[in-house]
Amino acid sequence: MDTQLKVGDTDEDTLVALLTAHLPPGDSTLVGPGDDAAVVATSDGRFVVTTDVLVEGQHFRRQWSSGADVGVRAGVQNLADVAAMGARPTALVVAVTLPGDLPLEFVTGLADGLAQVCRPLGVGVVGGDLSAGPVVTVAVTAHGDLEGRGPVLRSGARAGDAVAHAGVAGWSAAGLALLTADLAGHDRELVAAYLRPSSPLAAGPAAARGSATSMLDVSDGLVRDARRIATASGVCLELDDPADVFADDLARLAPAATRLSTTATTWVLGGGEDHGLLATFPPGPLPDGFRKVGRVVTGSGVTVAGAPPPPSTAGWDHFSR
Amino acid sequence: MDTQLKVGDTDEDTLVALLTAHLPPGDSTLVGPGDDAAVVATSDGRFVVTTDVLVEGQHFRRQWSSGADVGVRAGVQNLADVAAMGARPTALVVAVTLPGDLPLEFVTGLADGLAQVCRPLGVGVVGGDLSAGPVVTVAVTAHGDLEGRGPVLRSGARAGDAVAHAGVAGWSAAGLALLTADLAGHDRELVAAYLRPSSPLAAGPAAARGSATSMLDVSDGLVRDARRIATASGVCLELDDPADVFADDLARLAPAATRLSTTATTWVLGGGEDHGLLATFPPGPLPDGFRKVGRVVTGSGVTVAGAPPPPSTAGWDHFSR
Repeated sequence: MDTQLKVGDTDEDTLVALLTAHLPPGDSTLVGPGDDAAVVATSDGRFVVTTDVLVEGQHFRRQWSSGADVGVRAGVQNLADVAAMGARPTALVVAVTLPGDLPLEFVTGLADGLAQVCRPLGVGVVGGDLSAGPVVTVAVTAHGDLEGRGPVLRSGARAGDAVAHAGVAGWSAAGLALLTADLAGHDRELVAAYLRPSSPLAAGPAAARGSATSMLDVSDGLVRDARRIATASGVCLELDDPADVFADDLARLAPAATRLSTTATTWVLGGGEDHGLLATFPPGPLPDGFRKVGRVVTGSGVTVAGAPPPPSTAGWDHFSR
Repeated sequence: MDTQLKVGDTDEDTLVALLTAHLPPGDSTLVGPGDDAAVVATSDGRFVVTTDVLVEGQHFRRQWSSGADVGVRAGVQNLADVAAMGARPTALVVAVTLPGDLPLEFVTGLADGLAQVCRPLGVGVVGGDLSAGPVVTVAVTAHGDLEGRGPVLRSGARAGDAVAHAGVAGWSAAGLALLTADLAGHDRELVAAYLRPSSPLAAGPAAARGSATSMLDVSDGLVRDARRIATASGVCLELDDPADVFADDLARLAPAATRLSTTATTWVLGGGEDHGLLATFPPGPLPDGFRKVGRVVTGSGVTVAGAPPPPSTAGWDHFSR
């Protein structure tokens, strides 16, 4: 198909056919796209479900993000929420709004990005909806299978637990800062971490098998999200000195921080959208992929050794910025 | 809360708390809103899932539709897709974009509208996401439980089956036509059928129990949707003369049609968004709520006795209008 074509040059059925051809059917799909609804298998009489929307101008800009970038990001951020419950992702549906002047290339890229995230995991894209709209919005709803395990909630942390983290910290915020300063060429890997985040999805079910007492997807910043576990569990999360426990991230981010006259610690503690997993575990060995970053004590809130904690408003809020 | 407040005067956490307070927890909900994802029970190792988005300026206008109207419509159109698979609706999630100048009253109305649809059915609103955006968009993903039955697809119609319809036909299109002509006062009930459609949701599982061979939600127009069954099943759907089988709808719509110098038959055959159910059944008695409107024969496409069929483009397409 001619990639110079715009969305407004075609019709809904053509677009749906174009997208469906790019999307993986999934290992748990009993009835895929094309009917009024899909049917998905679940192994234990329960399913996990979460939804997140990406909005052009709020979460991404088309001059920075390709369709594939947006597809990857929409997929990852939703599958990370499924993984953060300790579930194995199985299926997603996607509702998209598209301006009429959007190149079709962006739309096929979007499908390819979702497919890149989903196909290796056996996750099916089992349904969707398309509408015209003034900006691109991508609302993904993702589903998972707990495989007989209990869900890992935010509310289960107990004094004496270890606090542990899987994934990178601060990379996405650093990448966004570089893009914003028109310095993308300074560090393409960090920019890619913002445009196409990579979440340690397998660590979610591993944490559940490893007796995690609480867990969440770090989407709004480490301290802000740690505070959510603290509040839900009625405990205090004492984070160790980032200079020790996030030494690798800090070293990786240092040149960009220097270039932008900020500190890497700000990104590690306050940056959002890396989609790492923050979890608490009873004393003992941690599952693969997790590093110990602190401990749970009685009390409330979050403390950070060796650094003043960011203000409670640090992190992302799409209405109060 | 002061209802003169705008979305931009508050923050995401406050909005989420405001919405969650209005929404029903649901009978099948194991873990509700507030964690990374929800957990929903399913009785038979499968779940049904569908998604649909409503976009301001495309599907509704704020000068016509209150927040509650949009909430009802978003709920009904998604639950109708679940019902059209023969499933009992159990849970939905909703991803919303909101302009900063939107009155908070619209947002609480939206939640109330969803609740009005969901609460009587025991359907939970188990999760959501909010973002700022240039227009209001409401992407709902709905889920259902097949209760051990096979899903009723579009592809199962067989020659010899009866074609049957549940719900009203043409009312929504008539209501939209009245609104567009600034004649809402002419017939408030028809306008309400557009703003807050009512779908015969219980007829979906009833049809499945009654051995329906195919079924879909009539969202894009009776003929257009009948053609989808015909195509998926490789058969022809012969619809009886609307003057006979839709006599009640035609009589109800006649005054509005006269007022607008059109024919009620146009609305009955081509009007979308009534969210009735069109199904096919083996010979025999029909389940409660269904009326016989035609038969399945060998061949392809759709015929309508006593009326020229609308062109194949009749009905809704959000990109080609």
